[in-house]
Amino acid sequence: MGNDDTRIRHRVRFFPDEVAISAPEGSNLLDLAVENGVYIDAECGGAGLCGKCRVKLDGGFRRLATGDAENLPEDESLACQTEITGALDVTLPSASRIAARRALEVEHEAQNQPHSTTSAQRALASRFLPPPVVEKLHVTVSTPSEMSAGSDSFRLFSVLKKAIELRDDSMDFQLLRRVSRVLRAESGSVTVTVARDYSQTPASRHGSPSLLNLEPGDVSERFFAVAFDIGTTTIWAQLIDLRRQEVLAFAADYNDQIRFGADVINRIIACQKSGGVQSVQQAAVATMNRLLDELWQKSGIAAQDIAFAVAAGNSVMTHILLGIDPEYIRLTPHIISTQYLPPVEVRELGLNLPPHARLYTAPLVSAWMGGDLVAGVLALDLFRSDEMTLLIDLGTNGEIVLGNNGFLISTSCSSGPAFEGGGIKNGMRAMPGAIERFQLEKPEAEPMIVTIDRQPARGICGSGLISIVAELALSGVLLPNGKFDTSLGCSRLRQGDDGSEYVLIRKEHSAVGSDIVLTEVDIQNLLRAKSAIYAGIRVLLSEMEMDVFDLDRVLIAGGFGQSLKVANAVTIGLLPELPLSRFFFVGNSSLAGAQLMARSAAAMRESERIAGAMTYLDLGASGRFFEEFVAGTFIPHTNQADFPAVNRALKRDKP
Amino acid sequence: MGNDDTRIRHRVRFFPDEVAISAPEGSNLLDLAVENGVYIDAECGGAGLCGKCRVKLDGGFRRLATGDAENLPEDESLACQTEITGALDVTLPSASRIAARRALEVEHEAQNQPHSTTSAQRALASRFLPPPVVEKLHVTVSTPSEMSAGSDSFRLFSVLKKAIELRDDSMDFQLLRRVSRVLRAESGSVTVTVARDYSQTPASRHGSPSLLNLEPGDVSERFFAVAFDIGTTTIWAQLIDLRRQEVLAFAADYNDQIRFGADVINRIIACQKSGGVQSVQQAAVATMNRLLDELWQKSGIAAQDIAFAVAAGNSVMTHILLGIDPEYIRLTPHIISTQYLPPVEVRELGLNLPPHARLYTAPLVSAWMGGDLVAGVLALDLFRSDEMTLLIDLGTNGEIVLGNNGFLISTSCSSGPAFEGGGIKNGMRAMPGAIERFQLEKPEAEPMIVTIDRQPARGICGSGLISIVAELALSGVLLPNGKFDTSLGCSRLRQGDDGSEYVLIRKEHSAVGSDIVLTEVDIQNLLRAKSAIYAGIRVLLSEMEMDVFDLDRVLIAGGFGQSLKVANAVTIGLLPELPLSRFFFVGNSSLAGAQLMARSAAAMRESERIAGAMTYLDLGASGRFFEEFVAGTFIPHTNQADFPAVNRALKRDKP
Repeated sequence: MGNDDTRIRHRVRFFPDEVAISAPEGSNLLDLAVENGVYIDAECGGAGLCGKCRVKLDGGFRRLATGDAENLPEDESLACQTEITGALDVTLPSASRIAARRALEVEHEAQNQPHSTTSAQRALASRFLPPPVVEKLHVTVSTPSEMSAGSDSFRLFSVLKKAIELRDDSMDFQLLRRVSRVLRAESGSVTVTVARDYSQTPASRHGSPSLLNLEPGDVSERFFAVAFDIGTTTIWAQLIDLRRQEVLAFAADYNDQIRFGADVINRIIACQKSGGVQSVQQAAVATMNRLLDELWQKSGIAAQDIAFAVAAGNSVMTHILLGIDPEYIRLTPHIISTQYLPPVEVRELGLNLPPHARLYTAPLVSAWMGGDLVAGVLALDLFRSDEMTLLIDLGTNGEIVLGNNGFLISTSCSSGPAFEGGGIKNGMRAMPGAIERFQLEKPEAEPMIVTIDRQPARGICGSGLISIVAELALSGVLLPNGKFDTSLGCSRLRQGDDGSEYVLIRKEHSAVGSDIVLTEVDIQNLLRAKSAIYAGIRVLLSEMEMDVFDLDRVLIAGGFGQSLKVANAVTIGLLPELPLSRFFFVGNSSLAGAQLMARSAAAMRESERIAGAMTYLDLGASGRFFEEFVAGTFIPHTNQADFPAVNRALKRDKP
Repeated sequence: MGNDDTRIRHRVRFFPDEVAISAPEGSNLLDLAVENGVYIDAECGGAGLCGKCRVKLDGGFRRLATGDAENLPEDESLACQTEITGALDVTLPSASRIAARRALEVEHEAQNQPHSTTSAQRALASRFLPPPVVEKLHVTVSTPSEMSAGSDSFRLFSVLKKAIELRDDSMDFQLLRRVSRVLRAESGSVTVTVARDYSQTPASRHGSPSLLNLEPGDVSERFFAVAFDIGTTTIWAQLIDLRRQEVLAFAADYNDQIRFGADVINRIIACQKSGGVQSVQQAAVATMNRLLDELWQKSGIAAQDIAFAVAAGNSVMTHILLGIDPEYIRLTPHIISTQYLPPVEVRELGLNLPPHARLYTAPLVSAWMGGDLVAGVLALDLFRSDEMTLLIDLGTNGEIVLGNNGFLISTSCSSGPAFEGGGIKNGMRAMPGAIERFQLEKPEAEPMIVTIDRQPARGICGSGLISIVAELALSGVLLPNGKFDTSLGCSRLRQGDDGSEYVLIRKEHSAVGSDIVLTEVDIQNLLRAKSAIYAGIRVLLSEMEMDVFDLDRVLIAGGFGQSLKVANAVTIGLLPELPLSRFFFVGNSSLAGAQLMARSAAAMRESERIAGAMTYLDLGASGRFFEEFVAGTFIPHTNQADFPAVNRALKRDKP
C-alpha cells in the first residue's frame, strides 16, 4: 500500500547509527524503526506499557496522550507513543547498532517495495479488454405491422443480431413471458442483457441462453457486476462499474461458515451432518448477501442493476457455494465433482441479486488447486509472461504454482495451521494484540516487539512467529535443529511444561494475564510447516528440472500478505534465497482475478485456458516429497547450497 | 374406426329396395340404415319413443328390452331398438326407396371409408424412427484412482462421449450436486438421461444441457414419455413406452380453462384480469395433472420414470401453457411472443412429472396457426408427400393448410361456433341426445332422425346441422339462398319467432319439453360459417394458382371427425366437390403429431422444419376473401362450376 501513500514525507535520522529514512507524516516512530530494522527495546509490543522504547527527539513529533509518556522530559518520548510531524533526529538511549546483515536487507526491501495488490491490479486490468461476458445494450425494435409481423422474439433477435454476435436466438420462457409487453412499453426501445459465447469450454455454453434480461427504455448505462473471493476465512466483494471500468465499492467480512470449523476439512465434515451441504452453503450466502448490502450502501447502486456476478474460491468453497457436496474431495483419491462450473442463476443459490443474474465461477484444477489460484494466475498474468514465476499462497493449505507462458504446474501441501497461529502455544490469528514483529540484537539483549495496532500483547500471529524464529536463529539463541542453545545463559530462556521456551512478553505486560512464550514444540510445528512448503517448491522445480535460482519472480499471495518479512521467511527456509527484488506481495490475487473475469470475457476465457493447462502434482504420490520434507526441517535447510547467504549470516552472528 | 372392426359381419338386406349391406354383429339396425342411406322414419332420434321406425324382420336379430317394443309381433321390431345377430332381411313398412343420388354416395363411402386416426397413426409412426430427443442409457464409469483422477463429471462424460453424440459435456448444477454420489452408489453403474441436439433451430439448443438426469444402476428400460394435445375444449394425453415404442395408456378430459370461457378470445381476456395468465395456465396444468394420474393408474407406470413430455396446442393454448400472456395475439396485428418454444422444466409449470423432465412444445406458425396444426401436418406426412393435400381443422376457428412436399401455405378463418352447435336456436355440443343424422326423402315425408347414443333428442350438434341443411336442400324444402320454400306445403314448416322454421322433433318426443326446430337464422349462421371455410380454401388455392380439382387429398381433422358425413358437407358447399375417396378423417392429428415428436428426434426436427416452412396467409389482408365469402353464402355456392354434381342433384330432386 506504500506505493499509494501520498502523504508528505519527512527525513528521520536515527543516532548513533545515522540511519536516515524518509517517513510519511503521522508515522508511528516505533513502526518506522521496526520497518527499517532500527533496533529499539519494546517488550510490550508498542502498547505504551513497558516504557522500554524511550528515545531522545529533536524535530517534528507529537506525543500521543497515553500513560507514562506524560512524565517524560519534553525532548523525550516513548517511540511507540510518538507520531512524526516533521524532520526528526532520534537518539536511542541504549547503544544500539544496526547489524550489517540487516542494513543490506533493509536497503533491498526499501528499493524493491513488493507490489501492492492495487498497483498489480492496475497494471493487469489493462491487459484484458472489455466487453465482459455479459453485456447490456440498447436497441430499438420496430413496431409490428400486418405487412411485417413475425413473432416478437423474431423481431427482437433480428435487431440484436445486427448489434452483437449471439450464440443463439432464443430466450428463456421466463423472458418469453415478458418480451411482448417490454417491447411495447417504450415503443420498442429496449435494453437487453445478453451473455456472450465467451469460450469453447462446456461451462460457457452450458444451459445459458444468450438473452438474460429485457428492460423497457434505455438503461444500458446502469451496468454493474460484483466480484467475490470466497475464502475459507474471509469473503471479499467488489462492486464494479462495467461501463466506466472502475471499482465503486469494496467490502469484506468473515465467512459465516467459520462456525462449522476453521478449515476446509471441518467444512466438508459439516456437510455430511444433518442440514448437510445446504446449511453450510447458506452460511456463505448469508455473508455474501451482507457484503452486497454493504456495497449498495457504499455506492448507492441498486441490486437490480447488477448484470452478473463472478466468484473465485478454492475447490471446497466452490463446491459448497454451488451446493455440491465436497465429500469426495476429502476422501482418497480426492475427486472434484467437476472442473468447470456452469453459470448458475443466483435465485437458485439465494443470493440477493436480480433473478436473471447469473453467478460465474472460476474453474478448478483439482481437489486442492481451486478457482482462487486460477483467478490468481489470471490476475498475475503468470501464464502469459516470459518470466519463470513461482506463486505461493500460504495458509493452512499451501498452494504453489510454477510456470510461465510455456507451462503451468502446481501442487499443494497441508502445512498445518502454524502460519495462521494455529498449533502454537500462544498462537493467534493476525488480530490486534498479536506480535507481528520481533527483533533481537544479541542473545542476552532485550527484544524489540511490536504488536498489531500496538495493542497489549495477546499472542503470536503467523508473521510474528516467522519473525521471532528468524531473529532467534540469527542471534544464535536458536540452533539450526530448532532447539534453543541453553549454553548461552540467555535470561529469557527457561524450562516450561513443553521443554525449553523463550519468554517473549512477561505477564505484567501481556493482555492475557500470563507470560507469552515460544516453545520448542511451537518451533517444530513451524519448521514442519515451512518445510512442507519448501519441499513442495523443490519438487515442482525438480519436476521441471530446475532449481530455485532459475526463478525470475516469487509472488506471495493470500492473507499473509504485507505483514510477512521476506527476509525472515528466507532465513527460516520457507522462501528460497533470492534477491529480495524478485519477491512480490500480490495481496488478494483471487479477488483481482475475479474482478478481471467480471470486466472482460477474454479474461473469463483465459481462466478456462489456465485451468485446462495447469498440471497438478500430487505430492502424496511423489516419492521425492518426503525426502525433501525431512531435509527441510532445519534452519534454513539441510541442503546448504540453497541458502548460502543465510548460512553465512548464521555463522557470522554466532558468538 | 370401421377399419379396425374385427367383429363377425352379417349380410343385411333391406326391402323393397333390395339394398344389401355387410353389417358387424351387434350393430344397431337404425344406425345401419342411417349409415347406409336407407330411409326409415324415426322422429325421436332413435330413443324408442315415437314408434315410427317399426320394421318387419326375418333372420338374426335381438330386440332391446325397451319400451313399446314388447308389444310387437315376434317378426317385427323398432329398428332403433334392434341389434343384428345374424343374416337378416328387413322389410320397411312404408314404401321407402333409396334415392339414386344417395345410393351412389353410399357406395363411395362404403368403399372408401375415410382413414381412422388409429390406422393413420399406424401408417405414419413407422416413418420417424427412434431415437427420441431424450434418451436413457446405461453406462459404467471407472472408479477414480490416484493415477487416473479427473473430476467425476470428466470421467462420466469420457464414457458418455463414446456411447452417444453429445451437444456439450456439461451438466446443470442441480446434477453436479448429485454426480459424485450417484457414481459411487452402484460402483459406477449409472443410467443417464440425455437430451439430443435434435436440430439447428434455437428451441432445441436453448438453455438445455445435454445431461438431464442421473440414476444409480441400470434403469434404462424404464423409459417413458407423455404426449399432450392441449385443445381449447379438451386436453388429450398418451403415455408412451419409448423402449417398446408403444402407447400404454390414453386419457382425455375437458380443459379446466373452460370456466374462463369457451373460446380462445375469452381465455385471452381472462389472462388480463386479476390472477392473470397464471390462473388460466394453472387450470390447464390441473387438467394435465389429472390426466397424468389417470395414466399412472391405467398403466402402473410411476411418474419418476417419465423422461420428458411433449405438448401441441394452438398458439393461445401454447402461450398460456408456458405462462406467456397471449394479449398481443388478440390485438391487431396479432403477434405471437415466439415461434419456437424452449424446452421448459416441468417444475416451472407445476406439472407432476419428475423435476428433471422437460416439456417440449410444438412450434407455432403465427397467431392463428399453432402447434396443433404443425403437429398435425407432421403426423399426416403432408410436407413429405407428393399428393397435393388440403388439411382442414373445423372448429370455432377453422384452420386450413394446403401443400405437399413442395410448399406449405395456411390460413385460418373465424367461422363462428355453428360447427359446434353454437349460435343455433336448438344447437348443442356433440353429446348424447344431439341430433347427428337426418334424412328426408321428399318435402312432405317424415324425416329419419338419429341422436347420439339414441337418447331422447335435446338439440342439434354441428354434424347434425350440416346433415339437416343438406337433406332439406336436396329434398327441395330449402332453397339455394337458405330460405325455406313455403310454397311446398310441407307440414313441418311454420312461422316461428325468428321467421320460418322447420320442426325437427315435436315437443312430446323431445327431452327438452318443447319442439326442436331449425330456423332460417340458424341456416344463415351455418352458411356464413361454411362460406368462411370454403372461401379460405379458395383463397389458398388461388394463391397457388390452383383450383379445388387439383386436390389429391382432403384431410379432415379435429373433433368433428367421424360423425361428419362428407357428402352432406359437400352438398352445403363446406367441402369441395371431389370423389369421396379423396377425403380422410384424421381424428386428433395434433395428438398423433405430439406422439411422433415424443417417439423420434427426427419428428421433432421435422416439426420445426414444418413450422419454419409454412406460410401463413392473413385473410383479413386478402382482398379476395370477402368476395369469396359473399359468393359462398349460397347452397352450395354461387360459383356453380365448383359443384357440378351437387347442382345436378339439387335440380333433379326438386319437385
